Amino acid sequence: MSSSLDRKQQAWSALFSEPVDALVQRYTASVGFDKRLARFDIQGSLAHARMLAAQHIISSQDLADIERGMGLIAEDIAAGRFDWKLELEDVHLNIEARLTQLVGDAGKRLHTGRSRNDQVATDIRLWLRDAIDRIQAVLRALRAVLVDVAEANADTIMPGFTHLQVAQPVTFGHHLLAYVEMFGRDAERLADCRRRVNRLPLGAAALAGTSYALDRASVARELGFEAISQNSLDAVSDRDFAIEFCAAASLIMVHVSRLSEELVLWMSPAYGFIDLPDRYCTGSSIMPQKKNPDVPELARGKTGRVVGHLSALLVLMKGQPLAYNKDNQEDKEPLFDTADTLLDTLTLFADMVRGIRVNGEAMEKAARRGYATATDLADYLVKKGLPFRDAHEVVAHAVRDCTQHGCDLSELSLAELQRLHPAVQADVFEVLTLHGSAQSRNILGGTAPQQVRAQIARLRAELAG
Amino acid sequence: MSSSLDRKQQAWSALFSEPVDALVQRYTASVGFDKRLARFDIQGSLAHARMLAAQHIISSQDLADIERGMGLIAEDIAAGRFDWKLELEDVHLNIEARLTQLVGDAGKRLHTGRSRNDQVATDIRLWLRDAIDRIQAVLRALRAVLVDVAEANADTIMPGFTHLQVAQPVTFGHHLLAYVEMFGRDAERLADCRRRVNRLPLGAAALAGTSYALDRASVARELGFEAISQNSLDAVSDRDFAIEFCAAASLIMVHVSRLSEELVLWMSPAYGFIDLPDRYCTGSSIMPQKKNPDVPELARGKTGRVVGHLSALLVLMKGQPLAYNKDNQEDKEPLFDTADTLLDTLTLFADMVRGIRVNGEAMEKAARRGYATATDLADYLVKKGLPFRDAHEVVAHAVRDCTQHGCDLSELSLAELQRLHPAVQADVFEVLTLHGSAQSRNILGGTAPQQVRAQIARLRAELAG
Amino acid sequence: MSSSLDRKQQAWSALFSEPVDALVQRYTASVGFDKRLARFDIQGSLAHARMLAAQHIISSQDLADIERGMGLIAEDIAAGRFDWKLELEDVHLNIEARLTQLVGDAGKRLHTGRSRNDQVATDIRLWLRDAIDRIQAVLRALRAVLVDVAEANADTIMPGFTHLQVAQPVTFGHHLLAYVEMFGRDAERLADCRRRVNRLPLGAAALAGTSYALDRASVARELGFEAISQNSLDAVSDRDFAIEFCAAASLIMVHVSRLSEELVLWMSPAYGFIDLPDRYCTGSSIMPQKKNPDVPELARGKTGRVVGHLSALLVLMKGQPLAYNKDNQEDKEPLFDTADTLLDTLTLFADMVRGIRVNGEAMEKAARRGYATATDLADYLVKKGLPFRDAHEVVAHAVRDCTQHGCDLSELSLAELQRLHPAVQADVFEVLTLHGSAQSRNILGGTAPQQVRAQIARLRAELAG
Amino acid sequence: MSSSLDRKQQAWSALFSEPVDALVQRYTASVGFDKRLARFDIQGSLAHARMLAAQHIISSQDLADIERGMGLIAEDIAAGRFDWKLELEDVHLNIEARLTQLVGDAGKRLHTGRSRNDQVATDIRLWLRDAIDRIQAVLRALRAVLVDVAEANADTIMPGFTHLQVAQPVTFGHHLLAYVEMFGRDAERLADCRRRVNRLPLGAAALAGTSYALDRASVARELGFEAISQNSLDAVSDRDFAIEFCAAASLIMVHVSRLSEELVLWMSPAYGFIDLPDRYCTGSSIMPQKKNPDVPELARGKTGRVVGHLSALLVLMKGQPLAYNKDNQEDKEPLFDTADTLLDTLTLFADMVRGIRVNGEAMEKAARRGYATATDLADYLVKKGLPFRDAHEVVAHAVRDCTQHGCDLSELSLAELQRLHPAVQADVFEVLTLHGSAQSRNILGGTAPQQVRAQIARLRAELAG
Repeated sequence: MSSSLDRKQQAWSALFSEPVDALVQRYTASVGFDKRLARFDIQGSLAHARMLAAQHIISSQDLADIERGMGLIAEDIAAGRFDWKLELEDVHLNIEARLTQLVGDAGKRLHTGRSRNDQVATDIRLWLRDAIDRIQAVLRALRAVLVDVAEANADTIMPGFTHLQVAQPVTFGHHLLAYVEMFGRDAERLADCRRRVNRLPLGAAALAGTSYALDRASVARELGFEAISQNSLDAVSDRDFAIEFCAAASLIMVHVSRLSEELVLWMSPAYGFIDLPDRYCTGSSIMPQKKNPDVPELARGKTGRVVGHLSALLVLMKGQPLAYNKDNQEDKEPLFDTADTLLDTLTLFADMVRGIRVNGEAMEKAARRGYATATDLADYLVKKGLPFRDAHEVVAHAVRDCTQHGCDLSELSLAELQRLHPAVQADVFEVLTLHGSAQSRNILGGTAPQQVRAQIARLRAELAG
Repeated sequence: MSSSLDRKQQAWSALFSEPVDALVQRYTASVGFDKRLARFDIQGSLAHARMLAAQHIISSQDLADIERGMGLIAEDIAAGRFDWKLELEDVHLNIEARLTQLVGDAGKRLHTGRSRNDQVATDIRLWLRDAIDRIQAVLRALRAVLVDVAEANADTIMPGFTHLQVAQPVTFGHHLLAYVEMFGRDAERLADCRRRVNRLPLGAAALAGTSYALDRASVARELGFEAISQNSLDAVSDRDFAIEFCAAASLIMVHVSRLSEELVLWMSPAYGFIDLPDRYCTGSSIMPQKKNPDVPELARGKTGRVVGHLSALLVLMKGQPLAYNKDNQEDKEPLFDTADTLLDTLTLFADMVRGIRVNGEAMEKAARRGYATATDLADYLVKKGLPFRDAHEVVAHAVRDCTQHGCDLSELSLAELQRLHPAVQADVFEVLTLHGSAQSRNILGGTAPQQVRAQIARLRAELAG
Repeated sequence: MSSSLDRKQQAWSALFSEPVDALVQRYTASVGFDKRLARFDIQGSLAHARMLAAQHIISSQDLADIERGMGLIAEDIAAGRFDWKLELEDVHLNIEARLTQLVGDAGKRLHTGRSRNDQVATDIRLWLRDAIDRIQAVLRALRAVLVDVAEANADTIMPGFTHLQVAQPVTFGHHLLAYVEMFGRDAERLADCRRRVNRLPLGAAALAGTSYALDRASVARELGFEAISQNSLDAVSDRDFAIEFCAAASLIMVHVSRLSEELVLWMSPAYGFIDLPDRYCTGSSIMPQKKNPDVPELARGKTGRVVGHLSALLVLMKGQPLAYNKDNQEDKEPLFDTADTLLDTLTLFADMVRGIRVNGEAMEKAARRGYATATDLADYLVKKGLPFRDAHEVVAHAVRDCTQHGCDLSELSLAELQRLHPAVQADVFEVLTLHGSAQSRNILGGTAPQQVRAQIARLRAELAG
Repeated sequence: MSSSLDRKQQAWSALFSEPVDALVQRYTASVGFDKRLARFDIQGSLAHARMLAAQHIISSQDLADIERGMGLIAEDIAAGRFDWKLELEDVHLNIEARLTQLVGDAGKRLHTGRSRNDQVATDIRLWLRDAIDRIQAVLRALRAVLVDVAEANADTIMPGFTHLQVAQPVTFGHHLLAYVEMFGRDAERLADCRRRVNRLPLGAAALAGTSYALDRASVARELGFEAISQNSLDAVSDRDFAIEFCAAASLIMVHVSRLSEELVLWMSPAYGFIDLPDRYCTGSSIMPQKKNPDVPELARGKTGRVVGHLSALLVLMKGQPLAYNKDNQEDKEPLFDTADTLLDTLTLFADMVRGIRVNGEAMEKAARRGYATATDLADYLVKKGLPFRDAHEVVAHAVRDCTQHGCDLSELSLAELQRLHPAVQADVFEVLTLHGSAQSRNILGGTAPQQVRAQIARLRAELAG
C-alpha cells in the first residue's frame, strides 16, 4: 500500500465520506497541549517495541528501525525542530506518522497490539509519575527551609491566635513547624497517589486486551511500573489517579493559601511581624509608597485554580459509561496546569520563606496585648487545688478588671491577685511572663522551645532520610 | 527625568532595593494571557485621554500625541509586530511603555487620575461585554437551527423517556424544542449579566477615587457603558460579573451536556435514532469499523472545564478583604477560557445539529416497545367515569398481562380490554396509537404537532425580533 | 375499587411483584425533607382543582370535597398533627392519600391531568419564589443598616488597603458603602432569578402534556405566575432556576465572607478598629480572656456550604438525558439549606452591623502608618507640571528616605521636600494630611465625605422605593 | 464556688456583659448535629481522665466519679433519655455539664489540660475512623457480590463499548470486574486516609500544648491511635483528613455514578441487557406501565451531593490563618452526610447487584450489531504479514462494503474476503465469531473467559485475606 500515516486520514478514515471540519479539527485536536507527553510517548513506544521483538511479533530489524527513527524524532523534539501537525490530532499520531516517514513499514508495525486508549493512559501515568517526583523534591526543599527558619526562631515569642484573637504565647518556630506538618502530610498523600499512578495500562489495547502474546510484565519492568492493571476496560477508562492527584494538590494549595494569608497579615503594617524580600513584592503604578506581597497573594489566588481543576475532573468523569469516551481527553489540561502551578508555587515559597526577615520585637509586643497568659493563671490556680472550671471563672473576672483598668495580668499586684483567690502566691508571676508561659508548654507537640528543637531534630532526620 | 517606562522598573520600583526574581517575574506576569485585552485597553485609554483633554488636565497636544501613538501601537498589535515584554508585567504597562517611547511625555501623562486597578477592571468589562455579544449571536444561531430541525420533525414520533424508560410518545420536534427553551433562558441570563458587566469602573483610581476633576459620565458615554460604578473600593475589587458570567456559562454547558448525552445515546446502535455527519466524528486507531461522536462527547467533557472555572473564581474571591489584592489577577484565564469554550462549542453545535440525519423508523419502533400509551388508556377510563387513581391501577394490571403475553396494549382485543373494565368501547383503539396519543396532548407546551408548530411560530418571531 | 391510596402501593405498584425494600424506601423517600413544601403543594392542588372544575373535568361537588379536605389537612399540618408516612414517599402522595381518606373519590380525581413531575416542579417554584421574597427583605434590611452606619462614619478616616498594605486614606463610611453596592447587585440578581422561577410548569403532566383541556393560563393567574412554561419536556426536567438561585446565593455568601474577613481582622488586637457586641461573640472553654467573633467566622465558613450546594446541583444535572430522572430529587436539600443559610446569616448581619462599635482613633492612627498620602504628593507634583510617571518616581524616592529616617511624608520639612523637586511649595502640606487627602477625592464614587453623603442619599431613596 | 456548668454561661461567659442572642445561639450551636459524636466524646474523655489520674493530676476518686458519671450519661444517651440543650452549644459542654451535675467537682476537673479545640479534633477522628471501617466493610461486600455475578457471567458475551459505539466483544463478567478494580482502589485510598485520620490531637490543648504533664502516648494507646500529632497548632487547625476522606468518597461516588449510568442504560428497553429487582424500582403516579430504576438514578444524583461536600470543605479551609477558627465547625455536617451517603448507597448496591437478572441473549444480539470483530480481522491480516496500519485500512474498506450491503463481516464469503486481501484463508472465520474474538484476548487483564476466571480467583483470595 502506498498510503502513509503522514496524512492523518490514514489512521482511521478509510470509512469516512467527508473530511473533518476545520473547526472540529481544532476543537478535537489535543496536540497543542499533549505534545508535552512526547518524551514519555517515545519511552513507552520503545518499551512496547522491544517487547514485541522479544516476543517475535515484530522482527529485530523492525525494532532496530523503530529505535533509530525514535532517536531522530527525540532529537528533533528536544531541539524544537519537530513539525507538530494539528491535522494529526495528537502527540501519538504525530510521532507515529513521522516514524513511518522515516523508517517505513516498521513504523506501521509499532501499533501492533496497542491502541491509543492504552497508549495515552500509559503516557499520562509516566508523565504524572515524573511530575510527582519533581513536586516531592520541591516540597521537601520547602519543608527543609521552614525547619531552618523555625530553628532560628525557636525562642521568638509571638502571639498564638485562635479566632485571630490573642490566645496564648507561642514561638514563631513552633508556628512554622505547623506548616512542616501540613506539607509532610501532603508528601505522604503524593506518595500514596504515586503508587496508584505507577501501574501499567499498556496491554489493555482499545478496551478488551489483545490477541497478541504481549509480555506485559517485561514492559512494566522496563518502564519502572510497580504493578500491572488487572482489567482492560478499567485500564483505558480510569482517570482516578488524575483526580486523586488533583485532590492532593488542592490540599497543598489550601496549605499554601493559609501560609499566604498569614504572610500577608504579618506583613501588613498593623502586624509588622515580618518583611518579605523585595524580589517577592511589587509596587503600584499609582501609589509610590507601595510594596505589595504579590507572591503570597497570587499563590493564595491560585488555590482557586487548582480546586477548580479538581472540580472539572470530577464533573468530567461523573456518569461516564465504560470504556473510553472522548470526554477523557479533557483530563490533560487541568492535570498539566495543576502540576505546573504546584512546581512554581512551591519553588518560589522555598526561596521566599528563607528570605523572611522577622521582627521579633513586634511579635512580642503583640503577644503582650490580649492577656495571652490568662490560661496560665487558671492552670496555676488548678495546681493550687481549684477545679478547672472554677479557676477559669476566677481568671475571667480578673481579665475583666484588667480591661477596665487598662493593664495586663502581670501588672496586677500580689494583693490584687490574692483578692481574686487566696491561694495565689508570689510564684504566680513566673507563669505570667510570655517566656515562662511558652516554656511551660513542654509537652510533645507543645510550643516550649525545648519541644520545638526536639521536633526540628526529628524532622531533620526524616528529611535527610 | 531621563528614565523611561520601557524598562519595567520605571513603573514603580524606585522604592525597591533588588530586582524581581526571574521566576517571580514569570509567576506574577500576566502579559502572556492579558495581551488579548489590548484592543480594549487602547479603547479605554483613548476615552480616558480624550476626557483628560476635555477637562484640561492634559493638553490637546498631549491628546494628539497619545492618539497618534496608540494608532501606531494598534497597527503593530494587529499585524503581530508588537514586542510584548514579560518584564513589563502586563498588557497595560507594555502599551504605556511603548507609547512613551513613541510620543514621550504625553505617554507619561496618560495615567493621570487612573490606576491599573480601575484600568484593568475597565478593560475586562469591555472585553466581556464583547464576548457576551458574540456568544449571544451563536446561541441565537443554535436556537434557530434547532427550530428548523424541530419543524422538519414536528410529526416524527419518538419515545418520550423518563428514567430512560419509555413513558409516552412525543415528537422529535417537541423534544428539540425543549433545548430551545433551555438555550433561551441562557440568553436571558447572559443579557441580565451584561447589564451588570456594562458599568464603568474607571475613575475609581487605585481604590479611593482621584483628586482630578474627571468627567466619568463622558467616559461612560464614549465607551458605551450603561452606568457608572458608585463606589471606588467596590469598583476595583468587584469580580462578581466574572462569576455571574461563569455561572451562566456553566448552565449553558450543562444544557450542552444533556443534549450531548442524548446525541451519543441516539447514535449508539441500540437506539440508532440519528446519525451525525462524518465531519463531526472520528475513527479509531485500532478498530477499523468505528465512527465515534467525538464532538458531543468532548463537549460533554468540557462541561467540567467550565464548572471548574466557576469553582475557581468562587474560591478565588472567598474571604478577600477590600480592596484590590493580587489574587484577582487569577480571574482572567478562567474567564477567557470559558468564553472561548462557549464560542467554539455553540458554533459547532449549530452546524452539527443542522446535519443530524433522523431515522424516524427507528424512533417509532422504539416507541412501540414499552407501553407508551398506557397513560392514554388510563385517561380514557377516567373520561368514562373512573377516578384517576382507580384507572391507573386497572391499566397497571393490563400492562402486567401484556408483559406476560409479550404483546402491546393495542394488540389486546376489545373483549380482553372490556374484561379489565366494562366501560371500554371500540373507540379505545384510537387512543392506543402513537400518533393518536401524541395528537391528543394538544395543550400549550404539549407534544401535539399542532402545538409544536404554534411554538415554532412564536420562536421564529422571537428570533427574528 | 376498594383500594385506597393510604397504602402507598396504590399510587403505582399494581405492576410490581415485590414490595420496595425497607432501606430502599428510606433511601428513595423524600418526605423527610420535602414536607416543608406542604403549604405550596396544597396551594397548587387547589388551583389545579378549581381549574378542573371550571373546565368541567371534575364536578363542583368534587371541588367542594377537595377544598374541604385540604382545609382539614392544612390545619393538621399547621398544628403539627399530620401523620407523615415514609412509605408514602413524598409530600405529594402523603397529602393525596390523606385527602382520599377524608373525601373519597374526589381525592382520587385530583391528580387528573397532572403528574408528580409537573406537580413537584410547581411546588418547588412556589416555595423558592417565597424564599426569594423573604431573602430580599433581609438583604434590604442589611443594606439599610450598612447605610446607617456608613452615615455615622462618613468622616471617620481609616486606612484604605490594597494588598492589605496601607494605600490611601478612605472613610469608614465609604468602605461600608462598598458592601451596599455588592448586596445591591445581589438583590438585582435575585430579582432576575425570580422572573425565571416564576413560570408555571403545571400542565406538562409527566412529560408530554395532557389530553385534558386544562386552562393553564387560569392556573398561572391564580398562583401568581408571570409566565407559562412553553415545552412540557423542559418543564419537568428543568432545574436551571435552582442552580441560578444557588449561584446568586454563592455570590451573596462570597460578599458575606469578605465582610466577615474584615470584621475579624478589624476586631483583632493588632487592628482594634471595631468591637462587636458580646451577643455575637463567644468565649473559650480553656482561655478565660477570649472573646471570639464567632458569627462572622461561622458565616465565612458557611460560604463553603453554599458554594458546595451549587457544585452539587451542577454535578447533579450534568449529562442527564430528558426528561425527568430520579436524580432530580436531589435538588431539594441543597436548595432548602441554601435559602435557610442566607436567611439566618443576613438576619444576623443586619443586627450585628448595627451594633458595631467603631474605634475611630485606632483607624486614624493606622492610616498614619504607611505613607497613605504618597499618591497625593505625586498628584501635587503633576499639577505642578511633572508627567505622572516622573512624579511617581520622585515620591518613591521620598518614601525611601522617610523609611530610613522613620518619619512620615508630612514630617519632612519644606526644604527637604523642595530638594526632591523644586516645584514644591508650602501648600504641599495641605495635601499631606489624611483628611485633606480624603476630601480631595471628590469624584462620583470617591471617598470624599461629600460624595459618601450624596451616595447615601441616593441609596436611601432606592431603599425606600 | 457555687456556680455549675449546667448553665452554659459557666463555660466561658464571666467576661461577657450580655447573653448571646437567641438566633446567634441557634446559628452557632452545633449540638443539633454533633451529638452523634457522643460515644466518641465519652470514650475520649475517659481515656483523658484515666491518664490524668495515672499522672496524679486528678485523684483516683475523681476518676472513679468521672467513670461512674460517664456510665450513667452513656446509658441515658443510648436510651434516648439524655436532655440535649441548645444553650450548652455542643456535645462536649452538654456532656461535661451533665457530668458535673452528677458528680460535682470531679466533673469540673475533667477539662484539665484540655480544650474543646483538641477535644473535638479527637472526637471527629475517632468517629471518622469508625465510619471508614464500616464503609470498608460494605465496600468489600459490594466487591464480593460483583465478583460473584462476574463469575456467573464469565462467558456471557456483550458488546464492549467505546464512545457508546460497539467496539469489541467482551464478557459481562469482565465488564463487572472493571468496577471491582475501581472499588478496590477506593478501598486502598480509604486505608491510606485512615492512617492520617488515626493520629491523636489530644494534648494540643487550645493551640500551644499544656503545662500539665500529660502522657499523650498512653492516651493514644488506649484510644487505638497509631501516632501522635507533632505540632499543637496544626493539631487543632488541621481538617485535611476530612477533605481527604471526602475526596476519596467523591471518587467512590463517581464510580457509583458510572455503574448507575450503565445500569440505567442496560435496563432501558433499547438495550434490555438486564432487569433490576422490583424492590429497587418504583412506578409512576401517572403512567401505569412504568418501572423506573430509582436506586441507580438517585445514587447517580447523590454523586453531586458528595462532590458538593468536598467543594464545601475546600472553600471552608481556604485562606484560614492558624490556629482554630470558628469556621471549622462547618466541617461536620458535610462529613457526616458524606459517610451516611456512602454507607447507604454501597449497602443498597451490594444487594441490588446480586439481584441483577441478565439477558444474555439481548447482550449477544447487540454485540452482533456494529462489526465488533473488525479488529480481529485486522489482527488476522497482520499475522499474515501486513503492517498493522495497512491492515486497519483494508478492514475499514470491508466495513464500508458491509454497511452498504447490510451484512456483518462474518457474512462475507471467503471469495469476498480474499478480494480485500489475498492472504485471507478459511481460518479467518474463526476470528470473526464473537466467542472466538473474546477468547483470543487471552492476556493478563484481557476479556478472555480464562483470564476473567483467573482474576476472579485472585480477587477471592484478596477479599478473603
